[in-house]
Amino acid sequence: MKKAILLLTSALLAVSAPAMAAPKPKAAATPVAPEAPEVTATKLRDAALKSNLAYDFVAELTTRFGARPAGSESERKAAEWSAAELKKMGFDNVRIESFPLQIWQRGAESLEIVGPFAQKIVVTALGGSGATPAAGVEGEAAIYETYAEFADSKADLTGKIVVILQPTVRTQTGQGYGVNSGSVRRQGPELARSRGAVGYVMRSLGTEDHRFAHTGATRFLGEQGLAALAMSPPDAEQFERLLKMQREGKAGPIRLKMLSTPTFKGAGTSQNVIAEIKGTKRPNEVIVIGGHLDSWDLGTGAIDDGAGVAITMAAAKVMLDQGVRPERTVRVVFWGSEEVSQPGDQGLSGANAYATAHAGDTHIAAAESDFGADVIYSLSLPKTDYPDFNKKLGIILYPLNIFVDRVVSTGGGPDTSPLNAKGVPVFDLQQNGTDYFDVHHTADDTLDRIDPKKMTQNVAAWAATVWMIANTEVVFQPTNGK
Amino acid sequence: MKKAILLLTSALLAVSAPAMAAPKPKAAATPVAPEAPEVTATKLRDAALKSNLAYDFVAELTTRFGARPAGSESERKAAEWSAAELKKMGFDNVRIESFPLQIWQRGAESLEIVGPFAQKIVVTALGGSGATPAAGVEGEAAIYETYAEFADSKADLTGKIVVILQPTVRTQTGQGYGVNSGSVRRQGPELARSRGAVGYVMRSLGTEDHRFAHTGATRFLGEQGLAALAMSPPDAEQFERLLKMQREGKAGPIRLKMLSTPTFKGAGTSQNVIAEIKGTKRPNEVIVIGGHLDSWDLGTGAIDDGAGVAITMAAAKVMLDQGVRPERTVRVVFWGSEEVSQPGDQGLSGANAYATAHAGDTHIAAAESDFGADVIYSLSLPKTDYPDFNKKLGIILYPLNIFVDRVVSTGGGPDTSPLNAKGVPVFDLQQNGTDYFDVHHTADDTLDRIDPKKMTQNVAAWAATVWMIANTEVVFQPTNGK
Repeated sequence: MKKAILLLTSALLAVSAPAMAAPKPKAAATPVAPEAPEVTATKLRDAALKSNLAYDFVAELTTRFGARPAGSESERKAAEWSAAELKKMGFDNVRIESFPLQIWQRGAESLEIVGPFAQKIVVTALGGSGATPAAGVEGEAAIYETYAEFADSKADLTGKIVVILQPTVRTQTGQGYGVNSGSVRRQGPELARSRGAVGYVMRSLGTEDHRFAHTGATRFLGEQGLAALAMSPPDAEQFERLLKMQREGKAGPIRLKMLSTPTFKGAGTSQNVIAEIKGTKRPNEVIVIGGHLDSWDLGTGAIDDGAGVAITMAAAKVMLDQGVRPERTVRVVFWGSEEVSQPGDQGLSGANAYATAHAGDTHIAAAESDFGADVIYSLSLPKTDYPDFNKKLGIILYPLNIFVDRVVSTGGGPDTSPLNAKGVPVFDLQQNGTDYFDVHHTADDTLDRIDPKKMTQNVAAWAATVWMIANTEVVFQPTNGK
Repeated sequence: MKKAILLLTSALLAVSAPAMAAPKPKAAATPVAPEAPEVTATKLRDAALKSNLAYDFVAELTTRFGARPAGSESERKAAEWSAAELKKMGFDNVRIESFPLQIWQRGAESLEIVGPFAQKIVVTALGGSGATPAAGVEGEAAIYETYAEFADSKADLTGKIVVILQPTVRTQTGQGYGVNSGSVRRQGPELARSRGAVGYVMRSLGTEDHRFAHTGATRFLGEQGLAALAMSPPDAEQFERLLKMQREGKAGPIRLKMLSTPTFKGAGTSQNVIAEIKGTKRPNEVIVIGGHLDSWDLGTGAIDDGAGVAITMAAAKVMLDQGVRPERTVRVVFWGSEEVSQPGDQGLSGANAYATAHAGDTHIAAAESDFGADVIYSLSLPKTDYPDFNKKLGIILYPLNIFVDRVVSTGGGPDTSPLNAKGVPVFDLQQNGTDYFDVHHTADDTLDRIDPKKMTQNVAAWAATVWMIANTEVVFQPTNGK
């Protein structure tokens, strides 16, 4: 018995030996070797998973301010509240930077089939689109299954209302949206106007099968622009059935009555909100992360993009909460006015204002969270020669079910694009966007669409990634191909 | 080899012997024993599973006429088209029976939080509700989590807008809706008015989490009635958060601006569409099945209740298609004006008109399909002493994944209730209603909500059940408890 006990004691001592071997000075007279960045990044990752800060922030933001259209009082109040909250949380250099923009405001909007097959169609006006006469406009529908058929057609469209039925294909990356937005939504109305049409109606750029119309910006042509509406996917299916009946000889021409009375309100003001954690060693080297604070007017901008500002803010805040400070400066930007188009195809007025005002800053990297609140599944980084950077980040991110993509990043969210154009490297924490276009730009974009647990995964990934960039000497190559 | 061939031939002859044994006269001089009703019912069941008629019918109905509000031109045109289609299909005695009703029509409707927490709320007016002044009405919100708290409260509601947040619980049977509709939707507005409130807003009687408001009838009090709106479930959650913030001292009183301008348009006309397959042996004994043709104005009434008229019509049509005729008369009714309330709490004007006009008919049984287009999972029958009736039907229905309930039926759909009250036995082919209140009474009630395959299961069950009642001498006891 005694021998056995002795053996056990020896074993226990052997196990704890390494810890006991290192002499522990009572007062830290000699400097302690700093924690490796990947160790801190892992701690930040795990701390982020335990916090509900991002969800609580987007909940309060949307509850307090609802929709935050670019240049609106609501967007301004949300910016002021955000700045106050960021100060309370302990961020440095919290400030609001204002900029001018042209304001478009939705009016009344409706569409109905009149005569045979009479019924109301669920629609919403495209941002920046023109108006019908106050009494509306009536015309025969010129229905096209695809945009290409419309663009190629030589048919006379004088007095007609163009109807485009091209669907948005569901993809994880959002490509199905990307291939439609420039053509169907952005160019379509002006092309229809140039060919004599009196109105333009497109199937919403949306993947869901509920009866929501999705707004979004078309070209900002002021009062010269054509009235343009997006209809819900189930309503587009009604037109598909009518087209089929026309081809079978069961239906004649379809007449539409359309109303849209938006107003171009002239110059207004929007603003970016900026907050920092000043770097301890290289404060002039800045990593920019953020989302956009403005939203479309139909929902409350929970997934687009209350989620993005909340996720990136919370990723920085977890550093403050854990009592660690980055060596480079981490700057969080809540961009204003991302959603709207502007005259001269400028758009992105908040991002442009930021890039201009901060052209002299040394931006090490930039990235935006603007693709909802679903989980991140991959990280794309700019090219770097810094040893093992991607590998080390991969080890931290894989437990979150995220891989580091071998493909080099080319974009980092819309509001980073003016920076990217100037040579700032951008990275991309790619979220699962499979269901994003079910909700995006609709009245259904409200808080209940967000899963708090998925949000914490986002925060954890952002915190770890940003820390690794901030606390190494990694240098990225520009991502704009120059 | 030869022996083997001979043996095989004998076997084949043996198999076909019974068919060959019966002498087949060229002209049917001697009567052939009629096929047992359960054999025909099984054939009808299987034939129904191969037909898309019900789906095609509801597709064309909703594509041609869209929403069909009670007493509208659209409801009338849909009735005329239906009657023409039923004639073309070969039904007997197709006719339209008109009746008068009082008409309520939706006007403009909106709700917004003004002042702190300003945002727009997605709402729709309750059918039969009163109007606000044309400029709307503003008042402080009196928020109640449950209807009981509101009903029990002695708080002064003068000048306030009552807000009820009671949710609708998801159930397979629809009970979660049933417990709310009489109180929250039907009685609530008048109780609020009697206590001085200037408006009434309830969480929609709906189970979904999308941003649709669900309409539905409240008491029809004419211009004396209070303006009453239903809001979408996500908007109700906004009020829940505000209530929590009020309790935590983070929010003060919530002010609402409410607008609803419906009109009471006076007397109008609606109609029932009736078609029959005249019984071969007992034509005066009538089995009534059907659905209601009217719908709420927001969607196109695909699941409520285009599906019901299509399913029951198709169940009868399969008999015509198979060249078999029932011994008792099968009567299909497309009731008009099921959805709306009427002065004096009458409602069900189509069902009442039918019950009055046909009070002298011998109704053997009645049932309505008015619970969407999901699968049927059980059949409840009235009491009967007819031997093995339930057992035989169970054998036919189980392969469709339907059991015969041991509980005796007490209801057979809303439009059968005036008949039931007069002693007509009703039966119930109970559909799965788990998701029904996601869509019911919203703009989202459109064709795309229907799964054609599930519809054929319904048609098969109705065809088999109706045939068994029509071609046996089953007699049911009244189901109204008298």
